[in-house]
Amino acid sequence: MADVIANMSMSLDGFVADPEDRIDHLFGWFGSGDVEVPTAVEWATFKTSAASAKMLRDAMDNVGALVTGRRLFDLTQGWGGTHPMGVPVFVVTHEAPADWPHPDAPFTFVTDGLESAVEQAKKVAGEKNVAVASTTVAQQCLNLGLLDGIQVDLVPVLLGAGVRFFDHLDTTIRLTGPQVIEGDGVTHLSYRVARGA
Amino acid sequence: MADVIANMSMSLDGFVADPEDRIDHLFGWFGSGDVEVPTAVEWATFKTSAASAKMLRDAMDNVGALVTGRRLFDLTQGWGGTHPMGVPVFVVTHEAPADWPHPDAPFTFVTDGLESAVEQAKKVAGEKNVAVASTTVAQQCLNLGLLDGIQVDLVPVLLGAGVRFFDHLDTTIRLTGPQVIEGDGVTHLSYRVARGA
Repeated sequence: MADVIANMSMSLDGFVADPEDRIDHLFGWFGSGDVEVPTAVEWATFKTSAASAKMLRDAMDNVGALVTGRRLFDLTQGWGGTHPMGVPVFVVTHEAPADWPHPDAPFTFVTDGLESAVEQAKKVAGEKNVAVASTTVAQQCLNLGLLDGIQVDLVPVLLGAGVRFFDHLDTTIRLTGPQVIEGDGVTHLSYRVARGA
Repeated sequence: MADVIANMSMSLDGFVADPEDRIDHLFGWFGSGDVEVPTAVEWATFKTSAASAKMLRDAMDNVGALVTGRRLFDLTQGWGGTHPMGVPVFVVTHEAPADWPHPDAPFTFVTDGLESAVEQAKKVAGEKNVAVASTTVAQQCLNLGLLDGIQVDLVPVLLGAGVRFFDHLDTTIRLTGPQVIEGDGVTHLSYRVARGA
């Protein structure tokens, strides 16, 4: 059964982007080493530490579909039709874009809500995980009890302001873990969401 | 030369207390094991994991003085005149309390500002470190460039709201590290504040 896992590079003070949506301070670790990690797209080959590279490869091997919000989809211009993870993408949106230039790309615009998007993504992912690639979707998944795991790539910087990974949470949420992998310029922390009382 | 180090137990979403100043969700790791760590006071003997106990002992051995804000001082009722770390405490305040019931305790009320308090604490600490035990003081130290290190005891919980460790920061602050120690119900992350460009 697929797990639903939210993954972000986050500053120690909890931001995944600065107030202008820039991520320069948070993505340095993707290029902090010499071990290549190819992705599904030409424009993104990572060269990172051995520890981070192994983590990235394992994560990519185990992800079968991706759920994102409309804001991130627009910001990235739909990743040009191919997400670096090379998996089908489900975009939670009120309305499908009218002028999407990649109609044959494995992108599904889900207009009947987040739970439907997660359900569809799980079906496609099969035994693999569903990755959540958007703070708002991750937050809604947490509030709805849909999230099984949280992977934080914790970066040694304080941004002071910006877009928070965790925001608008309705209640206290207990986690277990983390599994820790120490990269170069990043600490990978993998948590499970605790169920029950 | 003494380093100035801020240390807090923090939730993954950045809080050191809930909106009612409660810390129950964050201090469980102080009692999550069977290795005793005595403190300077009878009411606080920790029983924690071997890894956390070693970290706590090392930290306590290396702290020579403590700087705190008036809010935390009032909240804890001045720790009854003895801080668990057993070191002199410098309280940054506008006015010394009129009715402080422990006049002989090693508490100094500093009314001429944070920089003076840190200076006085450093003198007393000598070769040992100055610990900062207050979010507002830590934030002001960060903004003034007075902080050398940040120790986060990261707890696997999302509180959703409360008092933030890092708030009101004027600028992006780069860190190096962390050194990682994995406890039980806590991940100890020790960072250095990066100087220069």
